[in-house]
Amino acid sequence: MPDGAASKDFSVTTGSLPASTKIHVQSPRFPDVKVAMREIALDSKTDAPVQVYDTSGPYSDPNARTDIRKGLVALRDPWIRARGDVEEYIGRSVHPLDNGLKGARQAAFMEFPSNGRKPLRAKPGKNVSQMYYARQGIVTAEMEYVAVRENEGRMAAAKAMSGGESFGAEIPDFITGEFVRDEIARGRAIIPNNINHPETEPMIIGRNFLVKINANIGNSAVASSAAEEVEKMVWSIRWGADTVMDLSTGTNIHNIREWIMRNSPVPIGTVPIYQALEKVDGKAEELTWEIYRDTLIEQAEQGVDYFTIHAGVRLPYVPMTAKRLTGIVSRGGSIMAKWCLSHHKESFLYTNFEEICEIMKSYDVAFSLGDGLRPGCIADANDEAQFSELRTLGELTQIAWKHDVQVMIEGPGHVPMHKIKENMTEQLKHCHEAPFYTLGPLTTDIAPGYDHITSAIGAAMIGWFGTAMLCYVTPKEHLGLPDRDDVKVGVVTYKIAAHAADLAKGHPSAQIRDNALSKARFEFRWRDQFNLSLDPETAKDFHDETLPAEGAKVAHFCSMCGPKFCSMKITQEVREYAASGMAQMSETFRETGGKIYQPADKAAERAPSFPPAAE
Amino acid sequence: MPDGAASKDFSVTTGSLPASTKIHVQSPRFPDVKVAMREIALDSKTDAPVQVYDTSGPYSDPNARTDIRKGLVALRDPWIRARGDVEEYIGRSVHPLDNGLKGARQAAFMEFPSNGRKPLRAKPGKNVSQMYYARQGIVTAEMEYVAVRENEGRMAAAKAMSGGESFGAEIPDFITGEFVRDEIARGRAIIPNNINHPETEPMIIGRNFLVKINANIGNSAVASSAAEEVEKMVWSIRWGADTVMDLSTGTNIHNIREWIMRNSPVPIGTVPIYQALEKVDGKAEELTWEIYRDTLIEQAEQGVDYFTIHAGVRLPYVPMTAKRLTGIVSRGGSIMAKWCLSHHKESFLYTNFEEICEIMKSYDVAFSLGDGLRPGCIADANDEAQFSELRTLGELTQIAWKHDVQVMIEGPGHVPMHKIKENMTEQLKHCHEAPFYTLGPLTTDIAPGYDHITSAIGAAMIGWFGTAMLCYVTPKEHLGLPDRDDVKVGVVTYKIAAHAADLAKGHPSAQIRDNALSKARFEFRWRDQFNLSLDPETAKDFHDETLPAEGAKVAHFCSMCGPKFCSMKITQEVREYAASGMAQMSETFRETGGKIYQPADKAAERAPSFPPAAE
Repeated sequence: MPDGAASKDFSVTTGSLPASTKIHVQSPRFPDVKVAMREIALDSKTDAPVQVYDTSGPYSDPNARTDIRKGLVALRDPWIRARGDVEEYIGRSVHPLDNGLKGARQAAFMEFPSNGRKPLRAKPGKNVSQMYYARQGIVTAEMEYVAVRENEGRMAAAKAMSGGESFGAEIPDFITGEFVRDEIARGRAIIPNNINHPETEPMIIGRNFLVKINANIGNSAVASSAAEEVEKMVWSIRWGADTVMDLSTGTNIHNIREWIMRNSPVPIGTVPIYQALEKVDGKAEELTWEIYRDTLIEQAEQGVDYFTIHAGVRLPYVPMTAKRLTGIVSRGGSIMAKWCLSHHKESFLYTNFEEICEIMKSYDVAFSLGDGLRPGCIADANDEAQFSELRTLGELTQIAWKHDVQVMIEGPGHVPMHKIKENMTEQLKHCHEAPFYTLGPLTTDIAPGYDHITSAIGAAMIGWFGTAMLCYVTPKEHLGLPDRDDVKVGVVTYKIAAHAADLAKGHPSAQIRDNALSKARFEFRWRDQFNLSLDPETAKDFHDETLPAEGAKVAHFCSMCGPKFCSMKITQEVREYAASGMAQMSETFRETGGKIYQPADKAAERAPSFPPAAE
Repeated sequence: MPDGAASKDFSVTTGSLPASTKIHVQSPRFPDVKVAMREIALDSKTDAPVQVYDTSGPYSDPNARTDIRKGLVALRDPWIRARGDVEEYIGRSVHPLDNGLKGARQAAFMEFPSNGRKPLRAKPGKNVSQMYYARQGIVTAEMEYVAVRENEGRMAAAKAMSGGESFGAEIPDFITGEFVRDEIARGRAIIPNNINHPETEPMIIGRNFLVKINANIGNSAVASSAAEEVEKMVWSIRWGADTVMDLSTGTNIHNIREWIMRNSPVPIGTVPIYQALEKVDGKAEELTWEIYRDTLIEQAEQGVDYFTIHAGVRLPYVPMTAKRLTGIVSRGGSIMAKWCLSHHKESFLYTNFEEICEIMKSYDVAFSLGDGLRPGCIADANDEAQFSELRTLGELTQIAWKHDVQVMIEGPGHVPMHKIKENMTEQLKHCHEAPFYTLGPLTTDIAPGYDHITSAIGAAMIGWFGTAMLCYVTPKEHLGLPDRDDVKVGVVTYKIAAHAADLAKGHPSAQIRDNALSKARFEFRWRDQFNLSLDPETAKDFHDETLPAEGAKVAHFCSMCGPKFCSMKITQEVREYAASGMAQMSETFRETGGKIYQPADKAAERAPSFPPAAE
């Protein structure tokens, strides 16, 4: 574990990744926009350091303040206030029930020391969403931040990438603030950025940007310390989670969420119906619009950046799931289905959707329209229930956009490979290019314990086809709660899927890191190979299991072949040999070129007959 | 570790997988063809046991003899001899150099107690390849065996599968021996089955059959016991490897190979140039055709079922690799490139190809035409060198087919997703539909330590597109030698890729296991969920970490949500509810059906305005 790893009550994992330095790239247009990135130094004498996208926030910066009792510096606070359209107000008071507490008998979790922080909201008649600004023609500091952030390496790349197939995405060679504004204005990208979460380093989710990943976390059954709960978020972003969803249930979730919000440099998403259900003691039929609305405001005041809202689970769709192999597997979906059936009424999320929009735009909370009817197995993929809901999500998208509220759309689930493309095509068509945010999908049901892999296959493919953000799946999916190692494996696996998608889409700078790592591999720069990898610790540990000596890290061979038998070593000799005799070689090629693809009967002429086998 | 795990000198892992029984399915046409399969019993009172393809051989059969000093029963021996076209002969004598031994100083590894076993070869003028028989119109017992084996579950399936996209493959609803014969005759499938390896349970590799996987093993630096070396093979096939390649180098490889051959129920592949190189002390330029040919005969007499032969690495292609980022990364490829350059001559594998065919057909060894110029990084994918070699492999395929020798073609390597399809298309076109056998491909270079995952993405895709066998990659790829756990993870990961491909291709029975597992999941039959999975041990262990109590395995909830909050439980209630009121629900659906997709402006009518936020 790196320096400063969680050990005391208020400490979380900090410190740089190996050979890495936090740098801040200055925007040419906005003097106070300085974008945090990670620079990886190389052992090479000729190759420049490699800059990579950095989600880890100040925790990986040895120069930054990281006291979770104080929270992160509110980077965006001056930007938000400078726009002059927000007001502080006395927020909703926190009830014991917000923490799931029914009486003094239960111990409340330590409160975050907020020092009288007041929430912000839009002034009456104002809309503070990034989509609103974008449609007014304003390039915000947030938009400029993501432009600089997404550009990482593109200047230097000079088309390092060869081709790519982007399936209609329009990925520019260089990202400008104006391009970001345009993408947000037309709903094709979102910056999840609640005005009450000014601690974020802005990031963008959209088909023409780098593919992002989300990690889910949840409270422990016995939450023992604030650091323990914050650490889950810190640990996820250290390995590359672009956003984190807090899916906590049970007691103390309001207080725990506050600790997470104040310390998170990445957008935080939630599924508010989970908390609303806690408030009615888990009885779905007792949910009301008023309880739900109150929960939305509670969480919006805390700063939650996007809400998963299952407003597409409509009463008429519920019977469509009855003949499924695995019915409804989404928690939110099943809660709403039960509510609809119990009351024999249309979903209150659907009927009150415009009011939800009014709340969202007062805080700039983005919709993540939930796919409550996503398939829970291969057999149920792409069925009537799923696509009926998807079309409703498209309808709701247009309502949200009427309010200038940012929207992304959640997607499946379990889908065999040949049905993945249809999901993307239908989503683009019915949801008007709003960003797609998918869970996997898992491409087979038969490997519990390995569902990070069954789903990484689907995630890479759907990311290539156009999904903007991939929700990770850990090895514990379907079986239990992920531990620290599972979270790391889940995040790294999804970074692989997202990056494979970026490569295949032809992002101009995506291949820089691949080329740098492969060159290091070829030149036997072992340390560079580890440091450029998504998980330097594991790469180094695996190598050291076989060849632990420090000398082996500069040796011109590896454990697979040994010193005498190394193909990379032979290739280097071949290269020198070929270089020296290249002219001659080319000559030979020209001479023989015409005869290379000899027909089978001609080839027979040059082969001797078969001598008797040895006796 | 299961019963009988390796502990004593001659014991290897044996015993059934959980809830599994070895069954033998009788061929309707061949009385002595009894195909081994695994049947998984379920806790369900209504659902039948599930039969699955079984690569594990007699080791998972408690009733079978598994003494590695005696080897396996020679299942195919009567079939081979009954054809009357083979003869026993006094084989080539084993030289110390075959084991890499230069003198009495070095200790030879224990010999397999062969009891004077003599090799078989084709009688003069005879051809004993399955392709030859197929073209003569003969359905061999081997062909019938694979027909029954591939059919597993198809009778019962009754089109469990919905659709699939097979990219021009022609997958029948039901496999007959005649269909197998036809596929082999036209070169679209192979049964690797050396007449000197009668211990095999025949299996088929071809685009119209289930996608297969290969696991690589190699000798330990200090090989301590026969059981240790045999165990690697036994362990690989226990988890699903369809074939095993023995990539041993260094000393004692002849003797170790003999132990593996005599105990392997799956085809064994090798790369003979590795051993040939040992015989010239690792100096590629000292290789000769005579040494190589002698090595082929040595290994053919032992029973190796397919040879990787890098005959497509031609002199004119070598300079094409000089400008690559990572040159030549195939060991065999780099050895041959070095030889070609050193002698400034065309490859002796290429110029002697017809003589190699003569050897192959005398023993029925199949070609695995090696891709010595495969790309070693994303940047080098699909380049001139790679595709030039591929076209030569197509040329050589036709020469081999002229001799009725079975052929498959090896493929890359490192390929970004958008370039994978082209590999398959080019291979089908230039190699005339000979089965494709690919390593991964890895879809990004940036995740050493996770290359089983970077490559499973590519493997699943290329398997879907038409690759017949996938060579596994372990987490240690590029970093070190895989241990027992790595091998298991690699095999299971590749079973996932192969099965995801089978689902996507629309194999008639592929989805049976997915459906059975998902149904078990939905019905909270935890034990069935574990037992139906590719790795029951890991699934159960992961579950038990959170809910170890035996009672939890029949509980109607799981650790992710707990008893109150389980979406599957809610769905079951929804289903009962919906079933009881279905008529009424349908009525409602019809009534509202016309109004579901309301335009945004109409939707506005039903939504109340936004009340003031709580103060």
